[in-house]
Amino acid sequence: MIKIFRLKNIISVKDFEREDIEYILNEASKLENIAKSKETSEELKGKILGLMFFEPSTRTRMSFETSMKRLNGECIGFENSKSSSVSKGESIADTAKMIEGYSDALVIRHELEGVSKFISDIVEVPVINAGDGAGQHPTQTLLDLYTIKNEIGFIDDLKIALIGDLKFGRTVHSLAYALGLFNNVKIYLVSPPELEMPQEVLHDLDKTNVKYEKVDSIEKIIDDINVLYVTRIQKERFGDINDYLKIKGAYIINRKMLEGKDLIVMHPLPRIDEIDTDVDNTKYNKYFTQAENAVPVRMAILKTLIKNNPK
Amino acid sequence: MIKIFRLKNIISVKDFEREDIEYILNEASKLENIAKSKETSEELKGKILGLMFFEPSTRTRMSFETSMKRLNGECIGFENSKSSSVSKGESIADTAKMIEGYSDALVIRHELEGVSKFISDIVEVPVINAGDGAGQHPTQTLLDLYTIKNEIGFIDDLKIALIGDLKFGRTVHSLAYALGLFNNVKIYLVSPPELEMPQEVLHDLDKTNVKYEKVDSIEKIIDDINVLYVTRIQKERFGDINDYLKIKGAYIINRKMLEGKDLIVMHPLPRIDEIDTDVDNTKYNKYFTQAENAVPVRMAILKTLIKNNPK
Amino acid sequence: MIKIFRLKNIISVKDFEREDIEYILNEASKLENIAKSKETSEELKGKILGLMFFEPSTRTRMSFETSMKRLNGECIGFENSKSSSVSKGESIADTAKMIEGYSDALVIRHELEGVSKFISDIVEVPVINAGDGAGQHPTQTLLDLYTIKNEIGFIDDLKIALIGDLKFGRTVHSLAYALGLFNNVKIYLVSPPELEMPQEVLHDLDKTNVKYEKVDSIEKIIDDINVLYVTRIQKERFGDINDYLKIKGAYIINRKMLEGKDLIVMHPLPRIDEIDTDVDNTKYNKYFTQAENAVPVRMAILKTLIKNNPK
Repeated sequence: MIKIFRLKNIISVKDFEREDIEYILNEASKLENIAKSKETSEELKGKILGLMFFEPSTRTRMSFETSMKRLNGECIGFENSKSSSVSKGESIADTAKMIEGYSDALVIRHELEGVSKFISDIVEVPVINAGDGAGQHPTQTLLDLYTIKNEIGFIDDLKIALIGDLKFGRTVHSLAYALGLFNNVKIYLVSPPELEMPQEVLHDLDKTNVKYEKVDSIEKIIDDINVLYVTRIQKERFGDINDYLKIKGAYIINRKMLEGKDLIVMHPLPRIDEIDTDVDNTKYNKYFTQAENAVPVRMAILKTLIKNNPK
Repeated sequence: MIKIFRLKNIISVKDFEREDIEYILNEASKLENIAKSKETSEELKGKILGLMFFEPSTRTRMSFETSMKRLNGECIGFENSKSSSVSKGESIADTAKMIEGYSDALVIRHELEGVSKFISDIVEVPVINAGDGAGQHPTQTLLDLYTIKNEIGFIDDLKIALIGDLKFGRTVHSLAYALGLFNNVKIYLVSPPELEMPQEVLHDLDKTNVKYEKVDSIEKIIDDINVLYVTRIQKERFGDINDYLKIKGAYIINRKMLEGKDLIVMHPLPRIDEIDTDVDNTKYNKYFTQAENAVPVRMAILKTLIKNNPK
Repeated sequence: MIKIFRLKNIISVKDFEREDIEYILNEASKLENIAKSKETSEELKGKILGLMFFEPSTRTRMSFETSMKRLNGECIGFENSKSSSVSKGESIADTAKMIEGYSDALVIRHELEGVSKFISDIVEVPVINAGDGAGQHPTQTLLDLYTIKNEIGFIDDLKIALIGDLKFGRTVHSLAYALGLFNNVKIYLVSPPELEMPQEVLHDLDKTNVKYEKVDSIEKIIDDINVLYVTRIQKERFGDINDYLKIKGAYIINRKMLEGKDLIVMHPLPRIDEIDTDVDNTKYNKYFTQAENAVPVRMAILKTLIKNNPK
């Protein structure tokens, strides 16, 4: 098994090697009972996590808080830029240095790509990127991989379809990239022409062992895949609303499409209507499990970074 | 003594039997020292309470947080619908399932009646209704009864006057209903004609042992009662402001009215001007004690539900 | 050494005697390892701090929260008046009494001078003033003194320059007053004529051993001082923006001015541009250390007040 986690900060999936991912997934497994409230822990007793959410994100914020608190740690911070000192004209650097003075690690959410990296360069405590604009959301990718490993049993040899908005959806970019670190993965890309996977992501995938293929309908590949990974198509992405209405239905998943298939459905949430609620009470639904997996995975990350980098 | 609390969720006073109420009041008594910071506890160590406040309520939120924290538990959640994922278009059901994944119990506050019940039907952790619109606020009723029992010594044979807005005030509806589970209680109803107790509440009371009587002034009954339970009359309830100004004074409690009487004054708070501050430093004032009692009572509820329903 | 801290509340620097200050600085020293996350503590286990922030202040709020949590205590409260019950028409007195019922101590931030004092008169738990309008911010002064003592080694015989807005800056008023409790301190006052130290503060200083002197440029005294204490000049203070622009540059500190000098630079933060960022990575920069010192000092205050005044 892997003995060391090399990274001090979690900024981008591109910093990961396969062993880093396996280390976190393995730690997360060991923390399952604590995450699920079956055991208590004092692993991070007295430690404080600084949450710098320049833009709101209830789900991400609450799962980081839960992860810290299940390990007997505590949180401080702000939920949006209006309640930060930046609203008084303070620089992001000064704000980060102040919160660093109070905390053992920082979690950053910002609408601009690169802010987490910038902060990690000026503070000494570990920094975790919790989403920066169209950029990265690496802890989401780790919990996606954890869900795949737990539910399917393997990541090497995986066959996965990425559905919906592949152009702007940062979770599918990060996930595709991370899958490139595994062996013999096949990715099907299913999206409207307006929302295809960007050329630079495909270019990155070309350098890996991943095979990818664009397909124009879910039906064509639904018998071949282990995972259907659905993302939301925002109508704001379309200049003409009629273009949106025309294609919309082709990317909505319902129970009937899934019957008899051997696969799971994942979604980074929040869902609007791209998965019909009739899927919720079926064995295909793993999107709520995926959300719940945020806790053991983020616990593993917090524990590892804070223990490896004491103040 | 009662050995078991039957309910998994606290949604409505109408679900209570007398023994459920007595169970919680008895537990609350045992938790007094911890509530008052004289002893520490690890009863809910590592446990997490999910607070879903779709509308703000400082008092209720803070007393639930205090109750959880005095028992060494923790809280996550949101304080208003703007900071929930519902503001991004997520359904309440999905939001509740997400937070369920992180928590051991949920507390729901919503401006619409029935939301707590709806959520309790789709999640597996215990759900506590912390106020839904004109509907129920059952934990308020429990702390009201706890205050009566502690301060008067009995609930059977109680004589209580409900004063003020009996039409829209949900606390008086719930309290009247709960008193119907006890023996030989007499309720005096004192309100302007525009704000009388609704017919359906009276209809419910007719099925119980409670006797009730409408009276047109506080003076007539002030020598006969153990408890004067005051609620606020909002001027917005009156079409014509002059109607409000005419009646207003008749429902304001002051020190002079109370002198020489053997009773206590209660109020769910916040108070505006319906109890004169000259009552604050008298023996009649039990409204601040009542507010403080929120903690042992909510501690008893949280402890009971979370211990009885482990994840 | 000092054995007792006399005060129950921390309202104003004017309530301090030298021994009170020394008691807190000494306690803060002993708590350094816990503040810096090198040791854990259960000193305030089960205790709850009520934060009543009628106006937002991220830095002050987070450092109080951190201080409480490092000692294994917890916090409840509100961050701005909109999320308090005062927004529903409740009086500040009633709000304070409610939160008192849930907490072991209160921290008050309000835009009006005197609110903390008013609240301390009506509640029984200890009250800490975390800034009231143009009035006092006594815990800031304590952390300023702690920083001076740690970094310079002494407070008696100190030579300090106060720079910038000496008229409206409450931190410099409080600091000057507190320095009056020490021996043989010399204060240089450097400000534009529009923003000179108020006559009443100078009058207070005249009654102490402090010597003060107005000087019209930093250059004249920079070789003589131990501490350069910088505050921000807000352009809103000037009727004519041109007056502001004319004087602005004379009060900006940069690396070149400091080279070869034997002094430290302090600032209560947030900084806008009155200290050039080229000072950040020099030995002169103690403003980030000063911000970090908020934690041991506020820990010392919280521990002392809560332990000395059990509910």
